[in-house]
Amino acid sequence: MKKVAVLLSGCGVYDGSEIHEAVFSLLAISQNGLSYQCFAPNKAQLHVVNHVNGEVVEESRNVLEESARIARGDIQDLKSLNLKDFDALVIPGGFGAAKNLNQWAMHGPSGEIDADVKNQIQAFVAANKPILALCMGPTVVAKALENTEYHPKLTVGTVSEESPYDIKGISDGMESIGSVVEMKSIKEFAIDEDLNILSAPCYMMEGSIADVHDNIQMAVKALKSRLA
Amino acid sequence: MKKVAVLLSGCGVYDGSEIHEAVFSLLAISQNGLSYQCFAPNKAQLHVVNHVNGEVVEESRNVLEESARIARGDIQDLKSLNLKDFDALVIPGGFGAAKNLNQWAMHGPSGEIDADVKNQIQAFVAANKPILALCMGPTVVAKALENTEYHPKLTVGTVSEESPYDIKGISDGMESIGSVVEMKSIKEFAIDEDLNILSAPCYMMEGSIADVHDNIQMAVKALKSRLA
Repeated sequence: MKKVAVLLSGCGVYDGSEIHEAVFSLLAISQNGLSYQCFAPNKAQLHVVNHVNGEVVEESRNVLEESARIARGDIQDLKSLNLKDFDALVIPGGFGAAKNLNQWAMHGPSGEIDADVKNQIQAFVAANKPILALCMGPTVVAKALENTEYHPKLTVGTVSEESPYDIKGISDGMESIGSVVEMKSIKEFAIDEDLNILSAPCYMMEGSIADVHDNIQMAVKALKSRLA
Repeated sequence: MKKVAVLLSGCGVYDGSEIHEAVFSLLAISQNGLSYQCFAPNKAQLHVVNHVNGEVVEESRNVLEESARIARGDIQDLKSLNLKDFDALVIPGGFGAAKNLNQWAMHGPSGEIDADVKNQIQAFVAANKPILALCMGPTVVAKALENTEYHPKLTVGTVSEESPYDIKGISDGMESIGSVVEMKSIKEFAIDEDLNILSAPCYMMEGSIADVHDNIQMAVKALKSRLA
């Protein structure tokens, strides 16, 4: 059975992994006959956000411990991820991707990327093992491949449909560090055939929970077809 | 569009709502053409559990604020739930149901039930509006209807298939406070036709994430058919 590493970044859209995207990723991986193992960086979150009112609170939480909630306890420190044990990598979105994996939420394309995250993504790309990045996940891939020989084709959504976020600003930022951005709706996903990188907008666009589920289903199905 | 109230109890299997069950409930409700509003009690959680090692930690978290992570911020205090605005009630499982809604996890059938939770469940039953309880959720319904004229038919799983939990002990406890327990596998659900109460085992039984998804899909489909 092919095995997928799932990189989480906390638990909750405003300071961690977007929960629906993470759960639908695990579901789609399982439904497509693949197995998974969750990973997360073992470090403090950048923020803890009260999800009722959106305010940052004075509290410290650990990315690995909070991610473990989504993984039902079955999770490992990202430092223990061994490329040879996995066939693909999936990165769900949420502000955690843009706060704990890179720091796009505060600093855009000039924000730092977590060193372990960068090294793991570069290793998957160098081995041509497929990566699927959801929602803000593509900014993590863009940062990981900045200043390399790679110019990944990525999407975080489209400017031609409604989004709660600044799709143009984020897309421009990704292009400024070497990515090639494609505009995709929540009913589509992008593929970089050469680099074996898939990306899907999910909650970057206005959409229902069912739309996000379907977007992930189609992307994971395409991911699986690249493992055959 | 018919509207479903979803009663959450935190965010994470060991101290809150089981995340997969909660997300799959929202998904199934949406896919069945129903709308939903999440609710949770606005009070401190009984425990905060480190989901990496399962240990209780010295920390306080609020049930409503943590539940908001699953609801992406769109959640209301259970005290504001007005029966006339809703057609059905869904209660996902997780230890939160048995720690924050009732206290079955520590005290079994003699544990206290949250007064607002009890009142809301009694109101839905009195109005014959359907309730779906998942995983440990049926213990909450059993406690809510203890010492009433109602003897709900409920399931938390079956002793004839593998479970990580003490299905017999929990079932016996539910019968001791007036429920009629049925044994159901993760591929089945129970219906009390008279009281309009459905229940499904989900993660009370050994099963994959896809099994839990499918169990919730079938139960929500049945719930919808009772709203027609």
